[in-house]
Amino acid sequence: MSVEGMIRTMADEAGKAARALRSIGRADKDAALNRMAGLLRRYSDRIREENAKDVARAREAGLSAAMIDRLTLTGPTIEGMAQGLEEVAGLPDPVGLVTGMWRRPNGLLVGRVRIPIGVIGFIYESRPNVTVDAAALCLKSGNAVILKGGSEAIQSNMVLAEILAEALQATGLPEKAVQVVPTTDREAVSILIGLDEDVDLIIPRGGEGLIRFVADHSKIPVLKHYKGVCHVYVDQDAEIPMAEEICYNAKVQRPGVCNAMETLLVHEGIAGRFLPAMIERFEKAGVEIRGCERTRSIAPQVRAAVAEDWPAEFLDLILAVKVVGDLEEALDHIERYGSKHTETIVTNDYARAQRFLGEVDSSVVLVNASTRFNDGNQLGLGAEIGINTSKLHAFGPMGLEELTTTKFIVYGSGQVRS
Amino acid sequence: MSVEGMIRTMADEAGKAARALRSIGRADKDAALNRMAGLLRRYSDRIREENAKDVARAREAGLSAAMIDRLTLTGPTIEGMAQGLEEVAGLPDPVGLVTGMWRRPNGLLVGRVRIPIGVIGFIYESRPNVTVDAAALCLKSGNAVILKGGSEAIQSNMVLAEILAEALQATGLPEKAVQVVPTTDREAVSILIGLDEDVDLIIPRGGEGLIRFVADHSKIPVLKHYKGVCHVYVDQDAEIPMAEEICYNAKVQRPGVCNAMETLLVHEGIAGRFLPAMIERFEKAGVEIRGCERTRSIAPQVRAAVAEDWPAEFLDLILAVKVVGDLEEALDHIERYGSKHTETIVTNDYARAQRFLGEVDSSVVLVNASTRFNDGNQLGLGAEIGINTSKLHAFGPMGLEELTTTKFIVYGSGQVRS
Repeated sequence: MSVEGMIRTMADEAGKAARALRSIGRADKDAALNRMAGLLRRYSDRIREENAKDVARAREAGLSAAMIDRLTLTGPTIEGMAQGLEEVAGLPDPVGLVTGMWRRPNGLLVGRVRIPIGVIGFIYESRPNVTVDAAALCLKSGNAVILKGGSEAIQSNMVLAEILAEALQATGLPEKAVQVVPTTDREAVSILIGLDEDVDLIIPRGGEGLIRFVADHSKIPVLKHYKGVCHVYVDQDAEIPMAEEICYNAKVQRPGVCNAMETLLVHEGIAGRFLPAMIERFEKAGVEIRGCERTRSIAPQVRAAVAEDWPAEFLDLILAVKVVGDLEEALDHIERYGSKHTETIVTNDYARAQRFLGEVDSSVVLVNASTRFNDGNQLGLGAEIGINTSKLHAFGPMGLEELTTTKFIVYGSGQVRS
Repeated sequence: MSVEGMIRTMADEAGKAARALRSIGRADKDAALNRMAGLLRRYSDRIREENAKDVARAREAGLSAAMIDRLTLTGPTIEGMAQGLEEVAGLPDPVGLVTGMWRRPNGLLVGRVRIPIGVIGFIYESRPNVTVDAAALCLKSGNAVILKGGSEAIQSNMVLAEILAEALQATGLPEKAVQVVPTTDREAVSILIGLDEDVDLIIPRGGEGLIRFVADHSKIPVLKHYKGVCHVYVDQDAEIPMAEEICYNAKVQRPGVCNAMETLLVHEGIAGRFLPAMIERFEKAGVEIRGCERTRSIAPQVRAAVAEDWPAEFLDLILAVKVVGDLEEALDHIERYGSKHTETIVTNDYARAQRFLGEVDSSVVLVNASTRFNDGNQLGLGAEIGINTSKLHAFGPMGLEELTTTKFIVYGSGQVRS
């Protein structure tokens, strides 16, 4: 079959599975998730065998050690995937929740109820465990999912797909509720994102190139973020030890992720007291600082920031630092260079904290906490399938509830419109 | 200036206005809306003068009487627009509502708060009063809006834009919060829907051609419905007089709108008792019936339905009628031919009513009420800017709340991630 024929068939089967899922309740979905966990453990050796083929091919292709590390599945990572499935089984089911119900003057009883979105296309470049995580979240929220993973993980993803299908079949759920695209042909992505009659939502996860390609060519709604250019603003009334801990954590704890700090803004009234020790600590941790002129007048050893540094997502131990005259200047800088992802103010000033929370137009805005908390798990959503910086549907981290929508249900007794 | 330069400038100004609107509260927005209402009344003569130019041009161009009627603004229609503004002023402000707040084990206080979406592009072909309605809803929800109306209403829209801007200025709100594209050049639409860095949401309203053009070419999220192929299913346990009233209302009360019934499905167990009188009543009202074979065996005078009739949105006094063997067949038919817009079951059977509500995948699903209730006002949203049949963001009618999104706000006390 052609790639196009194959993807169309998969979308068609996903549509049928999605329809069946509408009337499948929590107990059955949880049973399937727990069965998946059991089968992952049972087939652990087989998963590692198939994964070893991906890893061998990656070595031949000369992929970096870091990428090979991300690709490799071990006993503990497989156990982690199994536990992840069990955790999702333990989360509340968002489907069926009536978010509001009211009676109209004419007696109509109008309610809104959470329903699955339908068919989701999930396109990713990440580690093979994302295959299992995404399948679990989509299934629990009642959606059918078509998973298109990276070509380097194809053998691993195929064996995981088989195991997930076996669990679905064994527990009486539609087997096509979770499908993995069984090809590395990149055409598959172009075809999938064009099926606007059959697919309700596309979620791309990976590098900015992949995401831009999907967003530019899809006719289907896309939830995504391109990058996270996250800021910490240290106000003149910040507690310096707290500011230091927050900034250090936001930059150094895991620099390669989207919620790491990329630019530090410091009020001029505290810069002289705060920056020298902070920059020293950063430099000890291997962070390269790129500072504005005023930063460099405080710490002359620092490299001068260039225009490209302010909108940059370094994803690395690099930090842009700017001294600002006031909160207004910090807000302007964030408005101009930010990515609507995550911004933090460190302050003990009540009015400025409230103003920052109100005026910063980012999916997560924090006072006195690390940017690293923009994460579905950390914020209490229970799990996360991604972060959305478009304003529509779900601004910010997306958990199970964000994989649903609502429809109106209306109980009448013969009402007509006059 | 080129059309492109003009639209880019408008989008840029809209962005600045949207930023200012973030910190403008209800009282100021309501004052502006009420001022707009006052100015519409004051300038009623001038509006009609400008409108007369549009109407004269429409007559010269040979537009239909119905279209000229829709275009014409009279004293009462202008008064209606003013009252509409006052009604929106009276509605609750969705912005700032904290939809939930919880404390995490590490002490972080995490909340979700409603915020405006930002900059909305509203593209429409309708009557000039839509200009005022859309402006009111966007302003009240804290959004800046760029309005691109139909070329036939350009003079009317321009004078309305001037009046709205005067009201914004007089009440201290950003004048560029509401802008009307001052050209009939169709290129303006293509440019507007490509500005994905500046515009957060596109809402097209009009014919299917306009909507498909926008959806196919926009890089910005689009909320829209192509058509409403709405069904009423009369179950074997329907009360016949109730079924007759609901079906008659759904088809005849206003046949040219998206929530009118286009196909009637009737259970075979009631068809013989229900259809003869129902069809007679429809025929008296001038409705042309297109029936399946079984319908024609009951009412032989009826024209035979062809394949194209089942997915058709007639928007006219035409109705497709099909007799089905059971609820399952009705659900299958709706799944295949429906547009996810509005579906009604008429029944006194509890289990089938609940099953219909649960399994029909439409934005509004009703029991024992007319399809004509899929309307923001009728369902109690207070107002409506359109109906969305994509599953994302707001499935169904969109009121003020649906013109907002939520962001996370986090109150910490120095938390970092371990």
